[in-house]
Amino acid sequence: MNQDYIVADNWALIEEGFDAGKVESSESLFSLGNGAMGQRANFEEKYTGETFQGSYIAGVYYPDKTKVGWWKNGYPEYFAKVLNAPNWIGINVWVNGEELDLHTCKKVENFRRELNMKEGWYQRIFVATLNNGIQIKVASKRFLSLKLGEVGAIQYAVTPLNNKAEIIVEPYLDSGIENKDTNWEEKFWETLEVHHENNTAAIVARTLKTHFHVGTFMQSSVSLNGETLNLTGEINKSETYIGLKFKQEVNQDEELTVYKFGGYVTSMNHAKDELISASENIINKAISLGYSALLEDQKEAWGKIWEMADITIDGDVKAQQGIRFNIFQLNQTYLGNDSRLNIGPKGFTGEKYGGSTYWDTEAYCIPFYMATKDEKVARNLLKYRYNHLEKAIENAGKLGFTNGAALYPMVTMNGEECHNEWEITFEEIHRNGAIVFAIYNYLRYTGDYSYIPEMGLEVMIGVARFWHQRANFSTAKNKYVILGVTGPNEYENNVNNNWYTNYIAQWCIKFAATHINKVKEGYPEDYERIMGKTRLTDAEVQEWLKVAENMYFPYSAGHDVYLQQDGFLDKELIMVNNLSKEERPINQKWSWDRILRSPYIKQADVLQGFYFFEDHFTKEELERHFNFYEPFTVHESSLSPCVHSIQAAALGKMDQAYKFYLRTSRLDLDDYNKEVHEGLHITSMAGTWMSIVEGFGGMRIKNDMLSFEPKIPEEWKGYTFKINFRNNIVKVIVEHGKTSFKLEGNNPVDVLVNGEKITVSPGNLATV
Amino acid sequence: MNQDYIVADNWALIEEGFDAGKVESSESLFSLGNGAMGQRANFEEKYTGETFQGSYIAGVYYPDKTKVGWWKNGYPEYFAKVLNAPNWIGINVWVNGEELDLHTCKKVENFRRELNMKEGWYQRIFVATLNNGIQIKVASKRFLSLKLGEVGAIQYAVTPLNNKAEIIVEPYLDSGIENKDTNWEEKFWETLEVHHENNTAAIVARTLKTHFHVGTFMQSSVSLNGETLNLTGEINKSETYIGLKFKQEVNQDEELTVYKFGGYVTSMNHAKDELISASENIINKAISLGYSALLEDQKEAWGKIWEMADITIDGDVKAQQGIRFNIFQLNQTYLGNDSRLNIGPKGFTGEKYGGSTYWDTEAYCIPFYMATKDEKVARNLLKYRYNHLEKAIENAGKLGFTNGAALYPMVTMNGEECHNEWEITFEEIHRNGAIVFAIYNYLRYTGDYSYIPEMGLEVMIGVARFWHQRANFSTAKNKYVILGVTGPNEYENNVNNNWYTNYIAQWCIKFAATHINKVKEGYPEDYERIMGKTRLTDAEVQEWLKVAENMYFPYSAGHDVYLQQDGFLDKELIMVNNLSKEERPINQKWSWDRILRSPYIKQADVLQGFYFFEDHFTKEELERHFNFYEPFTVHESSLSPCVHSIQAAALGKMDQAYKFYLRTSRLDLDDYNKEVHEGLHITSMAGTWMSIVEGFGGMRIKNDMLSFEPKIPEEWKGYTFKINFRNNIVKVIVEHGKTSFKLEGNNPVDVLVNGEKITVSPGNLATV
Repeated sequence: MNQDYIVADNWALIEEGFDAGKVESSESLFSLGNGAMGQRANFEEKYTGETFQGSYIAGVYYPDKTKVGWWKNGYPEYFAKVLNAPNWIGINVWVNGEELDLHTCKKVENFRRELNMKEGWYQRIFVATLNNGIQIKVASKRFLSLKLGEVGAIQYAVTPLNNKAEIIVEPYLDSGIENKDTNWEEKFWETLEVHHENNTAAIVARTLKTHFHVGTFMQSSVSLNGETLNLTGEINKSETYIGLKFKQEVNQDEELTVYKFGGYVTSMNHAKDELISASENIINKAISLGYSALLEDQKEAWGKIWEMADITIDGDVKAQQGIRFNIFQLNQTYLGNDSRLNIGPKGFTGEKYGGSTYWDTEAYCIPFYMATKDEKVARNLLKYRYNHLEKAIENAGKLGFTNGAALYPMVTMNGEECHNEWEITFEEIHRNGAIVFAIYNYLRYTGDYSYIPEMGLEVMIGVARFWHQRANFSTAKNKYVILGVTGPNEYENNVNNNWYTNYIAQWCIKFAATHINKVKEGYPEDYERIMGKTRLTDAEVQEWLKVAENMYFPYSAGHDVYLQQDGFLDKELIMVNNLSKEERPINQKWSWDRILRSPYIKQADVLQGFYFFEDHFTKEELERHFNFYEPFTVHESSLSPCVHSIQAAALGKMDQAYKFYLRTSRLDLDDYNKEVHEGLHITSMAGTWMSIVEGFGGMRIKNDMLSFEPKIPEEWKGYTFKINFRNNIVKVIVEHGKTSFKLEGNNPVDVLVNGEKITVSPGNLATV
Repeated sequence: MNQDYIVADNWALIEEGFDAGKVESSESLFSLGNGAMGQRANFEEKYTGETFQGSYIAGVYYPDKTKVGWWKNGYPEYFAKVLNAPNWIGINVWVNGEELDLHTCKKVENFRRELNMKEGWYQRIFVATLNNGIQIKVASKRFLSLKLGEVGAIQYAVTPLNNKAEIIVEPYLDSGIENKDTNWEEKFWETLEVHHENNTAAIVARTLKTHFHVGTFMQSSVSLNGETLNLTGEINKSETYIGLKFKQEVNQDEELTVYKFGGYVTSMNHAKDELISASENIINKAISLGYSALLEDQKEAWGKIWEMADITIDGDVKAQQGIRFNIFQLNQTYLGNDSRLNIGPKGFTGEKYGGSTYWDTEAYCIPFYMATKDEKVARNLLKYRYNHLEKAIENAGKLGFTNGAALYPMVTMNGEECHNEWEITFEEIHRNGAIVFAIYNYLRYTGDYSYIPEMGLEVMIGVARFWHQRANFSTAKNKYVILGVTGPNEYENNVNNNWYTNYIAQWCIKFAATHINKVKEGYPEDYERIMGKTRLTDAEVQEWLKVAENMYFPYSAGHDVYLQQDGFLDKELIMVNNLSKEERPINQKWSWDRILRSPYIKQADVLQGFYFFEDHFTKEELERHFNFYEPFTVHESSLSPCVHSIQAAALGKMDQAYKFYLRTSRLDLDDYNKEVHEGLHITSMAGTWMSIVEGFGGMRIKNDMLSFEPKIPEEWKGYTFKINFRNNIVKVIVEHGKTSFKLEGNNPVDVLVNGEKITVSPGNLATV
């Protein structure tokens, strides 16, 4: 924990004072992104202290050679990983010949960072005293444009405060960068061309192996006290670098400002051999708009996002800052307009977790995007998996499955598995269930059935085939069992009959069988096409159903709970509150065998199943299972507290719900896990949103209607959120003792509030 | 399999004809060793074809930085590994200026290798036609002296066959070598000094990190047609190399011979700064004896080894060659006179398995060394573990164990763990049981109780403490359970209640408790010392016993067998003979999850327990368990067939016993697992010995007596072996229908034959 390092503010992250030990953490927290690219909050000028340089382009990855101690058959040979891209933000600064470097200068004062979430920009201001005695003020502001997704802009101003000075600024591009994470200390980029013309420049580089071609570009102009100077930069060029040096005598208190446009054009969106011209085109667009207009556009674009996605919390600035930070980062990471992209666990804020897509997307992120964006965004996320179906079938084939059985990868960029711990890669197969659950969730929420005959059913068939083959009949139990799996609780490996896995396997088969029939009846042409393609027969479906209907579930009659897996009750059942603080987090203190044989749960497992399939169980059952498992849960996954928060709220345990909410919403801001320097926990941020909307707000979909059971933490005066439900936007205002609903749109909407139906009409505030 | 590549012969390995594709396999099979050092059968002259260079010094290792995909707390940072040492066998040869290289010369004829196991030398003869037309015959013979453990000798003779020729021979030393296996492609040696004087030379090099200092030395002389030439070699020297070039005109059919003594002196046995003089001393010893006398000594020394250790088989040359190859390699690897050394799974024949010591030593090798050597050899092997007790306690501490609990490493050189797969390193804890079982085995066999108060009891206490802490009470089972282990069958990971592990844990505790009492009564001074050192109390022992006496064992009433682990019967129990050949070996064909959830057993697991504790069970119980588990066993470990062979013989299943015997004895000669090029399976060779002596011979120790139940495979006419039992040597001669016993020594010995006691007296052949 590192509370109070970020100043509490409703709309901004603010850091005051320069602390070299926090540079890397702040680089994560103050990250910028616009869905197409993103960057850590690295300094523009040279910095020789500890820093973690990162600039990322959505969809551009590198298949690093896998590092593994002991190879197992079926491991992927390569591990696709997030790729630090060429640097376009750099601006070197010399003052009377001394290079500005906050690590080596004499003094840094009035250092202040601000990430303005409302308007989508990042600013840094400081006063530095150089070793040569010159004191300068620097103010830099930058943003990644939502309007022009390939463009970012920087305004970098230097003012000598105690004397006149000769100032050189050198905006540059650098493709000689490295990934922090590389298994074999190899470079991932090959530079093809370094180009310049007047004050614009571009470097074309391509990734090794994957051969993404990327044009990194910049255009710079310099002004003095607001007057543009007609300077041409002196070229400073190497094989992987180009800088434009501008030299200017600046009087005391005069301000020299560099305006730098920069960014990326890639072969994902342009022809490989036209990247120079593409970068010229986009630079021209940016110039014709100009820095100020682009910044105004930025404010407007973020305004539109907030208009829909904002959650307000009255009376609790830290909680307010937390939820807005989560919503802001989710929108920086993924905007949903490109079905080739997905939501990496670290977004554009770090390299950890390498690959881009985990089951996090289906299990945690989709509800957020469904409720705060147009429904095509969620559809794009589903389509991403449909596009990877063939690869999932190949992947299952590598593990010995046949007949079109599909196993989606644990971690992926392009549909291929890129993780290699056998207990995860091969055994954490429950992920396959989340892919289908997301289809169900989408259908339930949007009512858009068309996705199923068009794409979803094929995915469901591949997954059902997998479960059918993966289960085996146990003569001892006279039931079907699923042996050797890792459940959502990764603190158990290679267990038999993980309840969650068995349950979602059973559900997937039944769900697929139901929709095969529905498509047969309602979409005969699609049915024909799909049956032809998959060669599925009724007899095969009957075989699946035999498995589903005779699935075994571990259960304790004594505790009247489903057991997380076979043998759970053989453990020494010592609750977390009896564990000394020195032992926590156990994943940093204990050897793996000790963790595995302990009862401690990394993240909700049985409870995750109760979350997904809440309406299959009574509230009493939920309470019994919550009371049984929660005391063993250490929440050492960022994905855990949100589910517990939602369930605690549903059970009226508001103190617990609020505690879990704080933990999820300020996980990175308060650095609960001491790892924020590695990047932010993007996917769990969607869980934070859920813990307000589904937890406190109690939002569910029941019978094609929005349903709420609003509750409010004592600490808050009130909170509001908006829900886009089937093209109607409903604003929900919760206060102590009353909840109001406001419609944005013209068609009245029925909603359930604590089980009672009310109608929300245009212009009226419906209050309960 | 690669049958018939090695010519069948009672006393030798013979390869005829040059096959570049078999060079690496032959380098393994024709390896030499003398307990202190060993080497693969690399060519002396240059060879640019595929080759695996290896020369190894006992006890000299390198802690290579660990390679692992995903780090777990408690993993060792370094992986100690076998180290390719500087090359001293090299002799470069030029004929009329063309360098001899069997990979590039025009023609190779009459190529023949012989490993003479009876006399302990290796010979290679060939005729090569060079590209310049000169045809030469080369005959090289070499051995590693048993008399002077630091010395090897080479006789390398070149004869031009079709013309006179100018021949240059350059014996050399080279410390610029590399390990085949290096995780970070680093060099492991640093050369400190390259020294020469007349025709002797030495290179002093030290290993990085471990700082073993090694002097690699040579002395060369050259003769023509048997007459020593008074030549002084021309120095060819670099930072890591020294060669002595001898040039001579040789007429057609004249023979130019290099005699080269070489070898290693190390800081394990000499002062670091005296390695040059130590090498001069040992060279002088070798010179004063001379090549021929040293070779005669070699024959004599091997004669003595065979006198005791030989097993003869009449009527089955391949079986005879197989068992002698096994006995020969075991003696090449370990002679038992240095308690710092142990028996690596690959001995001096390759790098695989890196570290030197596995539970193989205690479980498989000790019986061989007890029966064929003085009992101090086995005692040295036990002492090796006693010397590592502190490290084993540290190792357990890293995994959270306290109070002097000891966990011996899975793989080690110096007592520290050097393996890092969590399911092995942390969970394959049954190894701890084998350490104590070996103490019991030694006591049972030798009757030498003194080891227990002197050293063994402390080991037993550390291990008992480990088991006591590692088990936990299951309220569900009302028994103590051991969760999350990997048994001897490594095709199961992280299982609960592996029967073998629970059984040996229980046994270790009871065995320790018994001997604490015995030592208390019989060795009060040792008792005081040990209690003081370990701070053990009676109360603690009672706590141990509570665990042992209430240990849970998985059992199937339906099959009336102990289950390998909880849940074994939930598997799809398809027997190995229903697996298609294309699926085998499953460890090369299947992904790990599929192996884990299959019923297939890599090596004896429950049956390993029945082997160790045979007298705890009836023959009917053994038969029931053998019949239950054998059909699921794929024997993909070299350590599996021997146990099955012994048990099959005990159960009178002689066909199976013979099949398993062949598999174990000719594993490398016939290359069953297609991996002989990586080195030989040394430790399983002791299992081969056991499968004759304990299997066919039925030898056991019962009530301090040797006991036999002799059987003979139909394919054999007869077989003989000798047993050193408590300083009496008994020769056993088994033929169809009768078994004879012959005593070497003066004191009559009682032995049991099929339960009947007979007395074997000096000079008489006792026949049953």
